[in-house]
Amino acid sequence: MKIDVLTLFPEMFAALNSSVIGKALETKLVELNLINFREFTENKQRHVDDTPFGGGPGMLLMAQPLFSAYDTIDQGDTPRTIILDPGGRRFDQKFASELATEKHLVFICGHYEGFDERVKTLATDEVSLGDFVLSGGELVSMVMMDSVIRLLPGVLGNNESAQDESFANGLLEYPQYTRPREFRGLKVPDILVSGDHQAIRDYQLQEAIKRTKEKRPDLYQEFLAHESSDN
Amino acid sequence: MKIDVLTLFPEMFAALNSSVIGKALETKLVELNLINFREFTENKQRHVDDTPFGGGPGMLLMAQPLFSAYDTIDQGDTPRTIILDPGGRRFDQKFASELATEKHLVFICGHYEGFDERVKTLATDEVSLGDFVLSGGELVSMVMMDSVIRLLPGVLGNNESAQDESFANGLLEYPQYTRPREFRGLKVPDILVSGDHQAIRDYQLQEAIKRTKEKRPDLYQEFLAHESSDN
Repeated sequence: MKIDVLTLFPEMFAALNSSVIGKALETKLVELNLINFREFTENKQRHVDDTPFGGGPGMLLMAQPLFSAYDTIDQGDTPRTIILDPGGRRFDQKFASELATEKHLVFICGHYEGFDERVKTLATDEVSLGDFVLSGGELVSMVMMDSVIRLLPGVLGNNESAQDESFANGLLEYPQYTRPREFRGLKVPDILVSGDHQAIRDYQLQEAIKRTKEKRPDLYQEFLAHESSDN
Repeated sequence: MKIDVLTLFPEMFAALNSSVIGKALETKLVELNLINFREFTENKQRHVDDTPFGGGPGMLLMAQPLFSAYDTIDQGDTPRTIILDPGGRRFDQKFASELATEKHLVFICGHYEGFDERVKTLATDEVSLGDFVLSGGELVSMVMMDSVIRLLPGVLGNNESAQDESFANGLLEYPQYTRPREFRGLKVPDILVSGDHQAIRDYQLQEAIKRTKEKRPDLYQEFLAHESSDN
C-alpha cells in the first residue's frame, strides 16, 4: 500500500515508527510519503493561509499550495483521497477494512481554522472521527492509518490477532486476566483457571453479551438482529 | 494542567511538540510526564505481558507494571484517570471541555491485545473514540490531549478562535474561501465579496443550516430543539 500525506507538520508522523506500524513501514509493506505543502506556495513569504472572504476571525488554508502539492502525487491509480470534515462519514472498523483493500491512500491534513472550500474538490472521502475540534488533522490521520495498516496481511504476527477482538463478532470483548491469580486483593474468576474449556468459552460469551448489553445497547441490538437472522 | 501518561512508547508523544500544543508544552501551560511502565516490571526479563487465563490468542498487559507505575503519580489531587475502552463514554467536544477544567489528567495507554481487567480499577473514566481497533492507545490519547489543551486559556492566540468553529453553535461550519477569487475555474460565491455584511452573515447562517441538515441530521434536530426552546 502507498500512502501520501499532505501536511505542514511531517515530523509528527515519526509517531508511526513505533510498534507494529513501524515494522510495516520498515519492511516496505507500506510506503509512506510525507509532503509538506508549504514547499508548494507561490508567494514569496511562503504563506499557506490567508483571511476569509466575508470576514470572520482566524485564517484559512489557501487552495493553491494544496492543489500544487496534490499535483505531484501519482493519480494513475485514482487514490482514495481523505479529508477530515465533521460532516463526513464516521470512521469505524468497516471503513478501516474498506480502506485496507486500497492500493493508494492520500490524507490531506488541515491546520488552523480550516481549508478554503475548494480544497474539498480534491477529496474522494470526507471523514470524521467524532464531534470534537483539534488543532490539526495529523493525529486523526495517524489514527486512521494505524487502524488500516494493522489489517494488512503480514502486519500482525499472529493471524488470529486481528480477528478475535472487539467488534469482530459485534460484541465488546469479555474481561481477560493474566498472571498472577491474585493481585492486590483482586482475584481472577475461578472458572478461568478451571481447565474446563467449554465452560470457559460459555462464560466468556455470556460476559461479552452482558457487557455489550450494559455498555453499548446499540451494538447489542445489532447483535440480536444478526443472531435472529442467522436462525 | 498536569498530564501523566503511562505508555510503552513515550517517543510517540514527540508528535505533540508541533503547532499550538507544542507551544503550550514549551511555555509550561501544560506539564507532560511520560512514564514508561516497562521500567516498573518486577520480572527479570522486563516482560509487560503474559498469556490470558482460560486460553485464547495473543497476550495481555499485566497488572503489576501498570499499578507500580501508577503508584509513582501524585494522587493528592485525585486525577482524572482515563483508559481507552470500546465500551466507554464516547469522546466529544463536551467531554473535552469537561477535561479542560481539570488540574491533573492521567492517560493509561494499552498495547497488544489488551489489559488485564484489573487495570481498569485504576481508571476514573473509560473512554472510546469510536468503533475501530488500533495497535495502541497512544494516538488516541494524543487526539484527546490536543482537543483538551487547545481549550486551555492562553493556548490559542486569538480568543475567538476556539469559539467560532464547528460544534460551538451546534451547526457545522459554513463554507469558507480565501484568495484568489477564482482558482482553477472554481469561484468564490459573489455574496462573500459583496461587502454587505448583513447579507454575508445571513448567507453563512443559511449555508451552515443547509449543510448540517444534509450531512448531520442528528445535529440539525438538536439545533431545532434548542432554537424552539429559546423562543
